[in-house]
Amino acid sequence: MASTAEHDAMRRALAIAGRGPRGVNPQVGAVLLSPAGEVLAEGWHRGAGTPHAEVDALSRLAPGAARGATAVVTLEPCNHHGRTGPCSEALIAAGVARVVYSVADPGDHSSGGAARLREAGVDVEAGVLASEGAALLDSWLTVQRLGRPHVTVKWAQSLDGRAAAADGTSQWITGPAARAHVHRRRAAADAIVAGTGTVLADDPALTARAEDGSLLESQPVPVVVGTRAVPASAALRRHPHGFLQFPGDAASGGLAAVLEDLRARGAQRVFVEGGPALASSFLREGLADELLVYVAPVLLGGERLALHDLDVTTIADARRFTLAAVAPLGDDLLLTLRPREDVPSGPATVARSEAQREGVL
Amino acid sequence: MASTAEHDAMRRALAIAGRGPRGVNPQVGAVLLSPAGEVLAEGWHRGAGTPHAEVDALSRLAPGAARGATAVVTLEPCNHHGRTGPCSEALIAAGVARVVYSVADPGDHSSGGAARLREAGVDVEAGVLASEGAALLDSWLTVQRLGRPHVTVKWAQSLDGRAAAADGTSQWITGPAARAHVHRRRAAADAIVAGTGTVLADDPALTARAEDGSLLESQPVPVVVGTRAVPASAALRRHPHGFLQFPGDAASGGLAAVLEDLRARGAQRVFVEGGPALASSFLREGLADELLVYVAPVLLGGERLALHDLDVTTIADARRFTLAAVAPLGDDLLLTLRPREDVPSGPATVARSEAQREGVL
Ligand SMILES: NC(=O)c1ccc[n+]([C@@H]2O[C@H](COP(=O)([O-])OP(=O)(O)OC[C@H]3O[C@@H](n4cnc5c(N)ncnc54)[C@H](OP(=O)(O)O)[C@@H]3O)[C@@H](O)[C@H]2O)c1
Ligand SMILES: NC(=O)c1ccc[n+]([C@@H]2O[C@H](COP(=O)([O-])OP(=O)(O)OC[C@H]3O[C@@H](n4cnc5c(N)ncnc54)[C@H](OP(=O)(O)O)[C@@H]3O)[C@@H](O)[C@H]2O)c1
Repeated sequence: MASTAEHDAMRRALAIAGRGPRGVNPQVGAVLLSPAGEVLAEGWHRGAGTPHAEVDALSRLAPGAARGATAVVTLEPCNHHGRTGPCSEALIAAGVARVVYSVADPGDHSSGGAARLREAGVDVEAGVLASEGAALLDSWLTVQRLGRPHVTVKWAQSLDGRAAAADGTSQWITGPAARAHVHRRRAAADAIVAGTGTVLADDPALTARAEDGSLLESQPVPVVVGTRAVPASAALRRHPHGFLQFPGDAASGGLAAVLEDLRARGAQRVFVEGGPALASSFLREGLADELLVYVAPVLLGGERLALHDLDVTTIADARRFTLAAVAPLGDDLLLTLRPREDVPSGPATVARSEAQREGVL
Repeated sequence: MASTAEHDAMRRALAIAGRGPRGVNPQVGAVLLSPAGEVLAEGWHRGAGTPHAEVDALSRLAPGAARGATAVVTLEPCNHHGRTGPCSEALIAAGVARVVYSVADPGDHSSGGAARLREAGVDVEAGVLASEGAALLDSWLTVQRLGRPHVTVKWAQSLDGRAAAADGTSQWITGPAARAHVHRRRAAADAIVAGTGTVLADDPALTARAEDGSLLESQPVPVVVGTRAVPASAALRRHPHGFLQFPGDAASGGLAAVLEDLRARGAQRVFVEGGPALASSFLREGLADELLVYVAPVLLGGERLALHDLDVTTIADARRFTLAAVAPLGDDLLLTLRPREDVPSGPATVARSEAQREGVL
């Protein structure tokens, strides 16, 4: 059982973990406690290539000062020889007597730290404030599980599934509340992706903006997918973070290669803004973990479909989703959906209870 | 002010009105009270060509027995010379001293009864139990207002607005709860309309059935629209009420002529079941008063659209609706919508409060 001092130290470790950047590596915090429960040192991880949190904390003590100490760490100490050496060995070498951690390391190469520590006679306790730890690392853990960033595909449509009227006009199918919601969701992502078709047709700024038009604090990097050039005058060229462009075609490895590149740059959450051709490709290739569909109570008819072909030939092959939430946004409706394979047991029940939790069904 | 005896008599009149058929004519009940408030006679209207409720009640009394009586009627006594003569004149001739009614007659030809009675010195009081009266006559009053039956257009679609997969399979896009709901809504209609395309493709029975497959008590008349013949083997030919067929094309007066014919047969509520071609025509011609859209949380892509062209060329001309209700039905979602022009003041507010009243948003 973790002591009160250890719980307090874990809370502190979780707080300072958040000082590190969200990226390829997890955000981790560590606090070293004396046998009497006094804080000896703290540390956190500042991103790929810099010392891990435990090592950062140890480095603040004189040699020998951690002998008999307890290390309280938000993530299981790693066991792999990367750029920084395994943290398990550093803790053993420093004479740490006990290690308390929150979340197990899911990595194939990095896990096994707890076993190594126990083998060396260190007392190890796992799962302290486990849900807080998992919440902190939510999107990093998702990337480890999926092997790629988490992908949200967003679109706005008329009830009958059109993205525009016959003449191509679409601004605005949905109302101001839906548009404001899109901007908040953009700000929570690490990258916003749009196809060249949309960039050339709409000249979007791809910034996350407040309702008064000012930039929100958090700005994901804009990513253009397609081979056509972004015009010299494009609004995108004035984005504070510049923009990335990938061909996205089969020859360059398709959308999977785009996601792999974004992952390597530290993107954990990717927000795909369309248009229809690109959104359809993400769906066809099974690369959508969440759909945000803003549905306006209007009918448009005609040929301008919000989604194209999805390789569904017969009804049994329909792409099935769980309706996680239904929320009114002004006159519109926001539907949040997740692929059925993500919810192996009782999707209907999960859908209902999630929706109820969000208070909208 | 209506007396307690008059209120009681109105409640009785509303109850017996319901014994008459729903049809071209309104359901009306009447109770004659003595000056002391005792029931002298009652009557109700048994449908077109039969005596009106007031006359039916008067006919049960000996000549002169209604002198000084109060007539309590659910609808304003008519003033027109139809097959039965104006009720206002019959009441005056019988020496009735006071008339109490619930709902004003909205008809161009039949209204004016109250004025005629007052002119003849009869004491008249309107609006007694007005909301109960309006509820009884809801769909008849709607027909008077619209000049045609009330039309609900129903369809089932994938979230992306498809009615079937590429190979035409569509059974079932939506689940059992949605299908059961369709049958309950069918039973509340006077006529179910389907295009020949649907009749030939799906061979629907067009009956309203309980979940065990048995026929519900109320069976609307099935109506086929189109010029192609209904096959001799069609399930429709076994319908307990037979079926009607109309060409529906421009040469025969289009869908307006179909609705006019159905109105003349007494249909107040028409339920249009599709398919896509016919539903699109009803929408294009502005002949939809309510939409019931059953949305399955699936994506299909491809060409099999739930709605075709609606003559919307630019976004400003989108067909706009008020989202009156959003209700989960199993894994699916039922959206109920009404045309925006039906809600001239504050559509957004109405939408929200109606949805809240139905407890689903
Ligand atoms: N309703 C909405 O939510 C919404 C959202 C965004 C846009 N829109 C509307 O959609 C229209 C533009 O959409 P769009 O469908 O024409 O274009 P798009 O999806 O924005 O872009 C399509 C282009 O992306 C590139 N691409 C690269 N890899 C791809 C892949 N794997 N799959 C598909 N495309 C790939 C190709 O460009 P290259 O040819 O350059 O290689 C392709 O032509 C505009 O009218 C815009 O207003 C609507
Ligand atoms: N998802 C759903 O809710 C749903 C509902 C019903 C059906 N469906 C599917 O829809 C398909 C059939 O639909 P569909 O669109 O091909 O046919 P449809 O809408 O059922 O029937 C179209 C036919 O109706 C006749 N018609 C007469 N007046 C018309 C008018 N003013 N406008 C349009 N049509 C008029 C014409 O028949 P004539 O050529 O004979 O004159 C026309 O070809 C089937 O595959 C069925 O499974 C889906």
